[in-house]
Amino acid sequence: MAQKPSIPKGTRDFSPIEMARRNYIFDTIKKAFKLFGYKQIETPAMENLSTLMGKYGEEGDKLLFKILNSGDFLKSVSDEEVAERSLPRLTNKICEKGLRYDLTVPFARFVVQHRNDLQMPFKRFQIQPVWRADRPQKGRYREFYQCDADVVGSDSLNNEIELLSLIDTVFADLGINIAIKVNNRKILSGIAETLGASDKIVDITVAIDKIDKIGIDNVNAELREKGLSEEAIEKLRPILEMSGSNEEKLSVMEGILKDSEEGMKGIAEMKEVLGGFETLGHKCVVEADLSLARGLNYYTGTIIEVKALDVAIGSITGGGRYDNLTGVFGMPGLSGVGISFGADRIYDVMNQLDLYPEEISESVRVMFVNFGKAEAMQSLKYVKALREAGIAAELYPDAAKLKKQMALADAEKIPFVAIVGDSELADGTIMLKNMVSGTQEKMGIDDVISTVA
Amino acid sequence: MAQKPSIPKGTRDFSPIEMARRNYIFDTIKKAFKLFGYKQIETPAMENLSTLMGKYGEEGDKLLFKILNSGDFLKSVSDEEVAERSLPRLTNKICEKGLRYDLTVPFARFVVQHRNDLQMPFKRFQIQPVWRADRPQKGRYREFYQCDADVVGSDSLNNEIELLSLIDTVFADLGINIAIKVNNRKILSGIAETLGASDKIVDITVAIDKIDKIGIDNVNAELREKGLSEEAIEKLRPILEMSGSNEEKLSVMEGILKDSEEGMKGIAEMKEVLGGFETLGHKCVVEADLSLARGLNYYTGTIIEVKALDVAIGSITGGGRYDNLTGVFGMPGLSGVGISFGADRIYDVMNQLDLYPEEISESVRVMFVNFGKAEAMQSLKYVKALREAGIAAELYPDAAKLKKQMALADAEKIPFVAIVGDSELADGTIMLKNMVSGTQEKMGIDDVISTVA
Repeated sequence: MAQKPSIPKGTRDFSPIEMARRNYIFDTIKKAFKLFGYKQIETPAMENLSTLMGKYGEEGDKLLFKILNSGDFLKSVSDEEVAERSLPRLTNKICEKGLRYDLTVPFARFVVQHRNDLQMPFKRFQIQPVWRADRPQKGRYREFYQCDADVVGSDSLNNEIELLSLIDTVFADLGINIAIKVNNRKILSGIAETLGASDKIVDITVAIDKIDKIGIDNVNAELREKGLSEEAIEKLRPILEMSGSNEEKLSVMEGILKDSEEGMKGIAEMKEVLGGFETLGHKCVVEADLSLARGLNYYTGTIIEVKALDVAIGSITGGGRYDNLTGVFGMPGLSGVGISFGADRIYDVMNQLDLYPEEISESVRVMFVNFGKAEAMQSLKYVKALREAGIAAELYPDAAKLKKQMALADAEKIPFVAIVGDSELADGTIMLKNMVSGTQEKMGIDDVISTVA
Repeated sequence: MAQKPSIPKGTRDFSPIEMARRNYIFDTIKKAFKLFGYKQIETPAMENLSTLMGKYGEEGDKLLFKILNSGDFLKSVSDEEVAERSLPRLTNKICEKGLRYDLTVPFARFVVQHRNDLQMPFKRFQIQPVWRADRPQKGRYREFYQCDADVVGSDSLNNEIELLSLIDTVFADLGINIAIKVNNRKILSGIAETLGASDKIVDITVAIDKIDKIGIDNVNAELREKGLSEEAIEKLRPILEMSGSNEEKLSVMEGILKDSEEGMKGIAEMKEVLGGFETLGHKCVVEADLSLARGLNYYTGTIIEVKALDVAIGSITGGGRYDNLTGVFGMPGLSGVGISFGADRIYDVMNQLDLYPEEISESVRVMFVNFGKAEAMQSLKYVKALREAGIAAELYPDAAKLKKQMALADAEKIPFVAIVGDSELADGTIMLKNMVSGTQEKMGIDDVISTVA
């Protein structure tokens, strides 16, 4: 019993100051989601394993947290099955539920389950924790939040333009300088098609991604190893060596992809998205980046990724267009596009750059010192008046030593301390001390309210 | 695949309108928590089972959701143990973690784990879901939210007075008429002591609770059955027949408990708490209720319960003083007092009485109709201006039939629809339609902003 209790590895407690900071981030994102017309939903932490299994690949199945069935979890397991110790088979028999692994699959399940109650296009946002049995390491947790916004039931590229504006708004509000990288899956397919190597799309994308790090000769050697022909490698050269503005890049691409219908469609989509976003005006950097290939097997059009410019950290937001979100649940043909803000990485960036407004770390504006029963009761009346004026206030509950009371005010960065002692009790005043400047002044409750507000 | 997906029984999805309503409740409670100086913390959904087991009684242990260990969960289980099929033993070997069952035990664990970083008295609030493998039924879920506020490290009754004020504030803000029932564990102990039946405190409390339903003769018959002496039953009679104001009740009790030190202490505490609350003024009904005995084995002083006056439903908020929250984790002697708002029942009450402000069900203030590429791009510029003025706005993403676009605005109760067609595009205006009155007027974007704001 005397051993200090702990929490499971990869999980975290959040202290008041950490909560204030995280809430600042979540509130900023949530405010933008609402300004843009996304509507909030929530889904249960537990989903049926039949909903989750097979959706995240073999590795994902292993990383799902599974919940032991209640009651006699062995009742449908025969002695032979027990003795066999086949883990997947046993798991399947003793666990029916698992913890949410991301917000996308539960959203797809939600859309299919409630299809008759939803108006399309449906713009939803969702901010909830997810759980993964990953090996915990710096910056990677077993419980973390995702903040997703998606539109389903519309294939208009206006949705992409809106999502770019949303990203721009959120990071401008947070004060983080970013570059949004944009690509299009159809361009990647077009490149592979043009090279006569549609089966090598992954290898080609990896190569494009590595060019800055290892140089063209090493990239070409790798491509040769993967079985790409010399002709294809030669054709790819201008793409690997491409530079300049987004317009210049797209114009180079147009030349190369002119015979690929899908590739040209991708370029047209990218032009419309980037063009629309330019027309509206924005604060962030936007870059057409053909090496961007996240979720290659999943996205079918626009691909989006966000990098922080002033901190070396991975992608802090990402997303894209998918044409078959709900097909796996028996509702094919529903196109969608969405993004996911990486709350934990954004938190790391905000902490590193110290971008929080000062007032968020305050607990209350005023703390009343406690000198005993009569003074405390009078103070509680003042505290009530302050709260009715919308000002957070409190009384130190015990008539403890003044030093101890002041130490609490200090530790919690409370900007004002109010003192109601004998003389103040007698003449109906309050001694208000400004904890930053150190000055103090006697005044009535109305003046306290206007001073601290 | 074609089977409609579902969620585990006892869990729920929350649609946008349900979220808006729940957020309204959570935001109201959270605002009050902050006004009163409580600071938010969060703890992980998963706790070590060693933290949770044994804290909620034998039944509670069974109702904990347990999480199967990742990887080879059978690795430390011998063939004999497998064959034995002893459920508790096996559970213990294959599961190390469980889902949070309430917010109190994780809070106690938090206080002990972070004792060196916390300033006492520590006022915390916590709003998070909890999970229980209870049999689901109407109004009882396997995943539900708790909203707790507690102060630890102070035994001042000012904390109790503050908690009553907090309850009064929250329910006044929500518009729910309530009665707060207050009791004190020490009075209950005093009664049992005075009757010479300290071991029968539970039976006596149950009897007091039943008096209104079954009458004094039946109550006395039950007490006889439980082994209470005729003398004790006679002594209890004035308590059972007690009525009148809180002052009158406490004065009757004072007469009866005059020889019980603990009982008199309980009365003194209750007088101070109710007296202080009266002095401050409040909107709710407050009632000294000696039948109140929730958490009898847990609370050591004040006991609080809240009933809605206009809806027949169980307690919607409850709490009390406990003198040994953290003892089980090796940190004895820390007194605390707290309350828990029952979000799901409050939600039921709010729905039944339809107490939500109308504007919370809005998605955006203005939706722009989409007539094609050029109009849409101009509309997006207006949408941007509206958002920069803090007004939620959106463009219907597709150039769909007007009827379909208007149907969405209707379904989502969007109060204004903005139309940018050929003529508006030409003269730089917007046709703004008020969806409630049905009137429409042509104006510039600045007038749109001031009209819909």
